[in-house]
Amino acid sequence: MKVAILGGSGYTALELIKILLRHPEAEIVAVTSRQEGAPTVAELHPSLTGRLDLRCEPFNADRLVARGVRFAFGCLPHGASMSALPALLERGVRVIDLSADYRLRDPNVYAQWYGESHADLAHLAQAVYGLPELYGDEIETAHLLANPGCYPQTAILGLAPLVAGGFLEPGSIIVDSKSGVSGAGRTPKLASHFPECNESVSAYQVGHHRHTPEIEQALADVAGQPVPVLFTPHLVPMDRGIFSTIYASPRRPVTEAQLFELFRDYYAKAPFVRVVDHLPATKDCAGTNFLDLTVRVVRGRILVLACADNLVRGASGVAVQNFNRMAGLDERTALL
Amino acid sequence: MKVAILGGSGYTALELIKILLRHPEAEIVAVTSRQEGAPTVAELHPSLTGRLDLRCEPFNADRLVARGVRFAFGCLPHGASMSALPALLERGVRVIDLSADYRLRDPNVYAQWYGESHADLAHLAQAVYGLPELYGDEIETAHLLANPGCYPQTAILGLAPLVAGGFLEPGSIIVDSKSGVSGAGRTPKLASHFPECNESVSAYQVGHHRHTPEIEQALADVAGQPVPVLFTPHLVPMDRGIFSTIYASPRRPVTEAQLFELFRDYYAKAPFVRVVDHLPATKDCAGTNFLDLTVRVVRGRILVLACADNLVRGASGVAVQNFNRMAGLDERTALL
Amino acid sequence: MKVAILGGSGYTALELIKILLRHPEAEIVAVTSRQEGAPTVAELHPSLTGRLDLRCEPFNADRLVARGVRFAFGCLPHGASMSALPALLERGVRVIDLSADYRLRDPNVYAQWYGESHADLAHLAQAVYGLPELYGDEIETAHLLANPGCYPQTAILGLAPLVAGGFLEPGSIIVDSKSGVSGAGRTPKLASHFPECNESVSAYQVGHHRHTPEIEQALADVAGQPVPVLFTPHLVPMDRGIFSTIYASPRRPVTEAQLFELFRDYYAKAPFVRVVDHLPATKDCAGTNFLDLTVRVVRGRILVLACADNLVRGASGVAVQNFNRMAGLDERTALL
Amino acid sequence: MKVAILGGSGYTALELIKILLRHPEAEIVAVTSRQEGAPTVAELHPSLTGRLDLRCEPFNADRLVARGVRFAFGCLPHGASMSALPALLERGVRVIDLSADYRLRDPNVYAQWYGESHADLAHLAQAVYGLPELYGDEIETAHLLANPGCYPQTAILGLAPLVAGGFLEPGSIIVDSKSGVSGAGRTPKLASHFPECNESVSAYQVGHHRHTPEIEQALADVAGQPVPVLFTPHLVPMDRGIFSTIYASPRRPVTEAQLFELFRDYYAKAPFVRVVDHLPATKDCAGTNFLDLTVRVVRGRILVLACADNLVRGASGVAVQNFNRMAGLDERTALL
Repeated sequence: MKVAILGGSGYTALELIKILLRHPEAEIVAVTSRQEGAPTVAELHPSLTGRLDLRCEPFNADRLVARGVRFAFGCLPHGASMSALPALLERGVRVIDLSADYRLRDPNVYAQWYGESHADLAHLAQAVYGLPELYGDEIETAHLLANPGCYPQTAILGLAPLVAGGFLEPGSIIVDSKSGVSGAGRTPKLASHFPECNESVSAYQVGHHRHTPEIEQALADVAGQPVPVLFTPHLVPMDRGIFSTIYASPRRPVTEAQLFELFRDYYAKAPFVRVVDHLPATKDCAGTNFLDLTVRVVRGRILVLACADNLVRGASGVAVQNFNRMAGLDERTALL
Repeated sequence: MKVAILGGSGYTALELIKILLRHPEAEIVAVTSRQEGAPTVAELHPSLTGRLDLRCEPFNADRLVARGVRFAFGCLPHGASMSALPALLERGVRVIDLSADYRLRDPNVYAQWYGESHADLAHLAQAVYGLPELYGDEIETAHLLANPGCYPQTAILGLAPLVAGGFLEPGSIIVDSKSGVSGAGRTPKLASHFPECNESVSAYQVGHHRHTPEIEQALADVAGQPVPVLFTPHLVPMDRGIFSTIYASPRRPVTEAQLFELFRDYYAKAPFVRVVDHLPATKDCAGTNFLDLTVRVVRGRILVLACADNLVRGASGVAVQNFNRMAGLDERTALL
Repeated sequence: MKVAILGGSGYTALELIKILLRHPEAEIVAVTSRQEGAPTVAELHPSLTGRLDLRCEPFNADRLVARGVRFAFGCLPHGASMSALPALLERGVRVIDLSADYRLRDPNVYAQWYGESHADLAHLAQAVYGLPELYGDEIETAHLLANPGCYPQTAILGLAPLVAGGFLEPGSIIVDSKSGVSGAGRTPKLASHFPECNESVSAYQVGHHRHTPEIEQALADVAGQPVPVLFTPHLVPMDRGIFSTIYASPRRPVTEAQLFELFRDYYAKAPFVRVVDHLPATKDCAGTNFLDLTVRVVRGRILVLACADNLVRGASGVAVQNFNRMAGLDERTALL
Repeated sequence: MKVAILGGSGYTALELIKILLRHPEAEIVAVTSRQEGAPTVAELHPSLTGRLDLRCEPFNADRLVARGVRFAFGCLPHGASMSALPALLERGVRVIDLSADYRLRDPNVYAQWYGESHADLAHLAQAVYGLPELYGDEIETAHLLANPGCYPQTAILGLAPLVAGGFLEPGSIIVDSKSGVSGAGRTPKLASHFPECNESVSAYQVGHHRHTPEIEQALADVAGQPVPVLFTPHLVPMDRGIFSTIYASPRRPVTEAQLFELFRDYYAKAPFVRVVDHLPATKDCAGTNFLDLTVRVVRGRILVLACADNLVRGASGVAVQNFNRMAGLDERTALL
């Protein structure tokens, strides 16, 4: 199965390439980049030296199709993604888009949170939100898959069993998330300059982070009604990992044992969601596609503690999981 | 003013020594330690080489008094503190205790959270809780000062203006805190072993951290009624710093401008509390006695973001601030 | 191929299990540990939750043989290794020992550097030093393989082409190495306590690190004569990775182009040694079995810059590479 | 004593301000910056909130003089420094320049290593190299002081006693240095982007780092003849700190005891050079103006292990030490 990677210079592309190099059914035949001078993939990412003998090329849909590309992974920034992908989709290439462009079904919500109108309403209408544990069936036949954000996955999967069962007091949900710095991408900026963010914790985009509507959209799908969420992201001095501490008030008193049973039932068939007894740590998921979570009841409130690797489970790993489903393969292929 | 430091081997003692070496009115005349072989202070802490020419000695109240010690800083573990301090207090030495032993006024609460009966009820009854912004007057005349915990300071000072004014919905307070690893002390253990906690975030002691009753006691003092708090500590891979993200529901709608005015008024005379407009970061307080905080209103909830250096403001710096007040000095001495 | 892991609680065992779980030909049937209470493997290593359903067991050679174990990986501390392994070797189990016990052929050298007599001279005489690039043929038929140390691999492979060709001035070799903290093992101690080693660089065991004779033994094998090395290890605040900066004086002037040709020829058939043009970084090898190196000539001296992941290439990855060779498999199996 | 800081946006300026705020004799009356919008100092550096109520201003020599500035600290990039400083020097302001512009006495050496001609030969001829332990007398009367680089200080002070006494074999000196990331400045770039340099060690500018001629110039001053040095800098994932491992061959056999005596004599009157018995660590100097060093003899070679804080001792602390000397104050003022 020949695949292309669009936008090869960032961390999600690097992680994707590493996973796909282990994939028995996928062959990377093209990596695109706007970088001048057509560098090799190894020049962009020295860790790939000797692993993938490809030179980056400008994006050209016809050329990719001519080379037999059947699946494309979009690692472009939002905005750029919805400019480039239509050409591929129209030529029959199935696309897994890791940008935010096709995640929000309502273009007004997109415009409100991203500050620009959506430029590809036609494909937006067909896009499937790629969270395998919730949208598994639709994913298998998707032509355009909107790969979910890193924060949203911990929040959505940490809350889905609770909102599905109507367990929660409306308006009571708080998601306090902590992320490693790779989540901010590979473009140097002051906030991710080592001497600024190392040895420091801070909150950012308090009250207006763009993952908020994504979390609310998926939870509304699960609940069948709006589910407002208060979401606060924090930056933590580590490369990778997301930890979400989720607080919510139950409608009726509930025990931890009941919650564990609820969560274990809900994720019984999800190979990458581990409902654990111990308090999880991002390190235990680092480099893997697992999302670990546990539940506690403290002073009458429900706490869900969920964590994952933001680059694997939060982006490139779940993208391959989605690819596996779309391609009719075991969803675990190349991910264990 | 001759001072002694009890329990010199840990991080709070080290930090205290560094601050006191800059203090124009304090002279460290003794450092006690149970370490065998009577090491020099510089052998315990190589960073003090050439700074303080003292050899550690076993704790002996008479000897300390004979040497003219008028103030003692207790850096002993809880339990050990309430065994050692009575001998000093009875000899008229004023004590600033950095352990938890004298923080909780109710010995039943102590027993419940610390798992053992309090062994020094007499002095417990006289102890003053050493948060200068709230208990300033009592501190000046205190004989036994219970220096506050690191987490509690961010939580209490982040909430005091709100609970003082009766602004909050009862039962709505959540404190989600993130701490650097030095908060766990200097004794090696698996949880603070570098390859375990580096590059990882996790929660710990969820629902039963001992700083919970300390926060609630001080807030009840401010409010004049019980103030329950849901407190969740997290470990973050950095040396020092505490960041608390505080969530609470207002009784009536409130604007950010009103909150800023409230906080700025409340801390107008507090030289070490900085109410800032920007989102604070622990790094901006690192190595200082400042506690930075800001407020936000998000979707109807109040957020307070408060941070400080856990070893300075959270322990040894505020101890010197308290010492300054007790000794009748400018409270900022040696702290700027 | 049924394999056992001896001493399952440390980092090399964890890394080994993760690699072997991907191995198509190996099945882990036993993990031994002295831990009380026979914890599951996931209790020792939460990251393995759901990955390997085994309970740790005390070491018992007969039981392992009865269960069909044909290969054992020894992850025991030195000293313990030479006590346990004879029982397995005598029962025909082939052993890959990750401890230092069988690396030094001369028991006097062992006694001198490890401070105790060697307790298993019989097997020591048969042990093969497991550096695949230099001892490949012997490895294939080895019964007892002494897996090489982490530092030595960067030093030996960084110098082998030079000493093989007699390019170096005798006595001119300096190896200045920098290691991540996981190299110190999983047992908590002050030197690897997070607040001690984080944000700090220091040298340790200057002049008497035990990897010195191991480096010299292998280089003497390559050179056919003694090759003294001055080796200085440093501790760097990161989880994993070793970087060695190697300095040596050439006998005759040499160009970088000649050195690159020499190194590329020497490692032409070594799939895990990458001779790179750029200055390598440990991060580019992290989590992989690659050892990256480059060469420079500066002011007449030769510099070799070599790096690798100390847990994979430096221990468990090369152990699997050796296992693959011993088992007649492609040496890259499970390692790409 | 009214002082100005030129180029206020970087780390050395921040560190300088923090030190000078503690200085009893210095008053910061101006901070210049090319930043648009004339931000306050606290907007550039949130950690200074409430500490220094100044707005950045464009550089204007006349205005600074009119405000009574008698000393200026130059924190400009090299090149910019030699454009701006002449105007101040001509107006009688004494200048401590933290850039590299006036460190190399020979303008040809400057041109060779910095790739451009020197633009201010007149003042270059008068500049004094500001390493207090070696150039103390000249510093006191200097009008233009070239503050030394961070790496050079560890190298020069680590070698000065040895080259002064003619102890070393010519051509045998290797300086292998490890630096924290703040040494690279505050301008975001890929090499200091957190996810690139965190958890990684690498060498950079091998063979052509600009601190090489600075080291050699000072050592030649000490030795009275050229002293070639092979210098290799490395980047280590920590905020601050420099560690130099120095290797050299003695002309005649020497013992560690002799070396300790030599070093202790040489630095007997240097309050900020600590000759320590233990192996030093950068953490022990962090935030201080101390430079810690020790000596060892290993296999006939001399090793000097020297470390310091690159921002304090390596830049802003030693700048204040120099200022103290120039102003006729105790050189330790504000530095303990």
